[in-house]
Amino acid sequence: MSINDLFKQEIKVINTGLTSFSDDIKKTGTQVVQLEWKPPILISSKARGLIWKNKKKIEKANAEAIKIILSAKPFLVGLSTAGEVIPGMEKKLILHAGPPVEWKDMSGPTKGAVMGAIKYEGLAKTDEDAAKLAASGEIKFSPCHEHLAVGPMAGVVSYSMPVSIIENKEYGNKAYCTLNEGLGKVLRFGAYSDDVIKRLKWMEKVLYPTLKKAMEATGGGIDLKNIIAQALHMGDEVHNRNRAATSLYYRTITPYIVETCDDKKTMIEVLNFINGNDHFFLNLVMPAGKATLDAARSAKGSSLLACMARNGTEFGIQLLGMKKDVWFTGQAPVPDALFFPGFTKDDAGRDIGDSTITETFGLGGFSIAASPAIVQFVGGSASDALGYTKLMYEITEAENNTYQIPSLNFRGVPTGIDVVKVVEKGLTPFINTGVAHKKPYEGFAERF
Amino acid sequence: MSINDLFKQEIKVINTGLTSFSDDIKKTGTQVVQLEWKPPILISSKARGLIWKNKKKIEKANAEAIKIILSAKPFLVGLSTAGEVIPGMEKKLILHAGPPVEWKDMSGPTKGAVMGAIKYEGLAKTDEDAAKLAASGEIKFSPCHEHLAVGPMAGVVSYSMPVSIIENKEYGNKAYCTLNEGLGKVLRFGAYSDDVIKRLKWMEKVLYPTLKKAMEATGGGIDLKNIIAQALHMGDEVHNRNRAATSLYYRTITPYIVETCDDKKTMIEVLNFINGNDHFFLNLVMPAGKATLDAARSAKGSSLLACMARNGTEFGIQLLGMKKDVWFTGQAPVPDALFFPGFTKDDAGRDIGDSTITETFGLGGFSIAASPAIVQFVGGSASDALGYTKLMYEITEAENNTYQIPSLNFRGVPTGIDVVKVVEKGLTPFINTGVAHKKPYEGFAERF
Repeated sequence: MSINDLFKQEIKVINTGLTSFSDDIKKTGTQVVQLEWKPPILISSKARGLIWKNKKKIEKANAEAIKIILSAKPFLVGLSTAGEVIPGMEKKLILHAGPPVEWKDMSGPTKGAVMGAIKYEGLAKTDEDAAKLAASGEIKFSPCHEHLAVGPMAGVVSYSMPVSIIENKEYGNKAYCTLNEGLGKVLRFGAYSDDVIKRLKWMEKVLYPTLKKAMEATGGGIDLKNIIAQALHMGDEVHNRNRAATSLYYRTITPYIVETCDDKKTMIEVLNFINGNDHFFLNLVMPAGKATLDAARSAKGSSLLACMARNGTEFGIQLLGMKKDVWFTGQAPVPDALFFPGFTKDDAGRDIGDSTITETFGLGGFSIAASPAIVQFVGGSASDALGYTKLMYEITEAENNTYQIPSLNFRGVPTGIDVVKVVEKGLTPFINTGVAHKKPYEGFAERF
Repeated sequence: MSINDLFKQEIKVINTGLTSFSDDIKKTGTQVVQLEWKPPILISSKARGLIWKNKKKIEKANAEAIKIILSAKPFLVGLSTAGEVIPGMEKKLILHAGPPVEWKDMSGPTKGAVMGAIKYEGLAKTDEDAAKLAASGEIKFSPCHEHLAVGPMAGVVSYSMPVSIIENKEYGNKAYCTLNEGLGKVLRFGAYSDDVIKRLKWMEKVLYPTLKKAMEATGGGIDLKNIIAQALHMGDEVHNRNRAATSLYYRTITPYIVETCDDKKTMIEVLNFINGNDHFFLNLVMPAGKATLDAARSAKGSSLLACMARNGTEFGIQLLGMKKDVWFTGQAPVPDALFFPGFTKDDAGRDIGDSTITETFGLGGFSIAASPAIVQFVGGSASDALGYTKLMYEITEAENNTYQIPSLNFRGVPTGIDVVKVVEKGLTPFINTGVAHKKPYEGFAERF
């Protein structure tokens, strides 16, 4: 640093209390850190006693869980259809994101996606018949998470849909996820019009067999941990930004597509479909997270989260050490988001999707320091991003040994959300909406 | 930030004077900024007087140059061969990196690359004959920079070599560069064995026609400014790290290759060649820089650099406002680099290559804050990277309006190296070697 620079350094301010002070200073372009202090989340003294009583058991289980999480090796190993590979899948079962929810309680987007899936499966022809069938009790509903699957947004998975198969090569467990449809009018946002169904059919008839054949040619599959680790060095946090990860996946799969696809038109269509959608990798990173965390469900008594997920009505969490159908839930929040002109928060639906599996294994919002472009998009600065990630170390058990954040001098991402730390510190681990979800963090202690 | 974090903050030290203090503190893992103060570069009082006298003219010319540099639109528009498109190219002319140099003064790598080019052109069969011909006076040598071209490392370009054509669509001027050969034994490092020549022939006979046809199918060409801007958001500084830029280029060109190439084996070979070499984009960013800066050579009297370049013997600079054959030169330094076991700086050659065109237009070392992975590789930290880039703002005229650095809150890259600032501040703009080059910055004032 030259001597001139020393006297030109920016002033940096730390403010406690009223945020209006920070706001005024920010307007001058000066950097401000708003010191936040939140009271712990109130849980019963009985629950606190149980945590205290189980402390050693919890610590041991958490250490075991972290060992499993850090040594996970999620690979994309192939493709199949939901009906062929997802455990418990049936022709009249529809999986959805988040904790369990029945038709009558479903949000608009989830209902729309369910109706779309019913039409896609040929179980009804008109929207009216689809809604009637959905409400009849003949169709069963179940969370993706209870079937080794994850789904972004509405997260609807039905029998004929193609899915990626992710294998955790270290532990042998598998996870499944549908293929990303792209942006615009898509099933996962609750759209169910004919063009949505038509695209899903193209994915089933053209995209799926092409990718399936290409994957078979890879031999050992594609190392997703490697791609994710690189993408974090390339400006992705792999939840809301997947441009680098999708690029690296594209580079990896393309020669196999070219090698195994005999029809040039198909080849170009498939390559353009992947190339045209930077979120394509989201549907690979999500099951990579699921396969990583599910392996650690063997850690009985662990206070680390197995998932956080929303169904558009409720927000739910699961703990690693508990059975796969045990959920702790509360009302899902309406996210703080950017709205199109003419729309406000009053028009918004409640939060939705299993994509928070990325945060649950340390990526997404937890790694936002790796992706300042995301913060810029929602109106923050690169230093805000550093602050968010640093905060998350307070409620996590470990730092990842493979996934790193360059701007924090390659510190490992905050890994293993500890529900005990969450209630003690009053910090909710759901920073990408900025909304606290206190209720789901009550009641878990009684289940240890 | 939580209140606990406040008391856990790292201590940061600023040290002036003896660096041994910094070194000791660094060993404890604490962050240290070593305050450096360097005396101005000594130039004659006559030269200082000339700068003073021409101050207004220089400022006006620099403002004009910056306007041109910032509005440049470098596109990859096609491919051809050096003989067909490079002005003044002849069968017995060999272009090289850096300022002018004759055979007898050439470094080992440059001599090797010249011999390789002679063999590649079929002008000699044996190494001995190639060296004899090179020394005979029958072969002419000229800097790439004097022929609208740039070349990495030895930078040797001969008549039959395929080149990319970059057009600055805002100003109509063009720049040329050969295709990147990959790593290992390659001509640009001075290798001239039969396998090197064989690869060059494959590039001429297979890679070149395939890419040429694919580029024709793009219609308008490929927007390199767009790719570079994105790559800076993805961890590249596009000199020593081009992984993201190469990925984005690969995504862009692949569908055109698939569309226009009729032979599947060729298609796969070409895709794998690009995919296998993350430096492929270097040979596109270099001429993008050349096309950007050359447009501003019309700014007569400007004190901004048109190029910095090394030929393995000498380091030279050119100023925007001067004729294309005016160089200011000094001995090229031996870079501070990492050496393979058993090798030391005594074994190293002097610095070489035109790739410092990236720094000259604000990228590479000047944008190293965008690419902490590079600093980590050479043993520094992410904060060192921020420091390097911040320092470069002291010797540059402007901040780019398109190329940005995320970790500096999207500040534009330091653009337009001002030779007057360089001599005044004593800061040399050649940070990727860490070595000062004072001599080339003498004598320019007399030429205004």
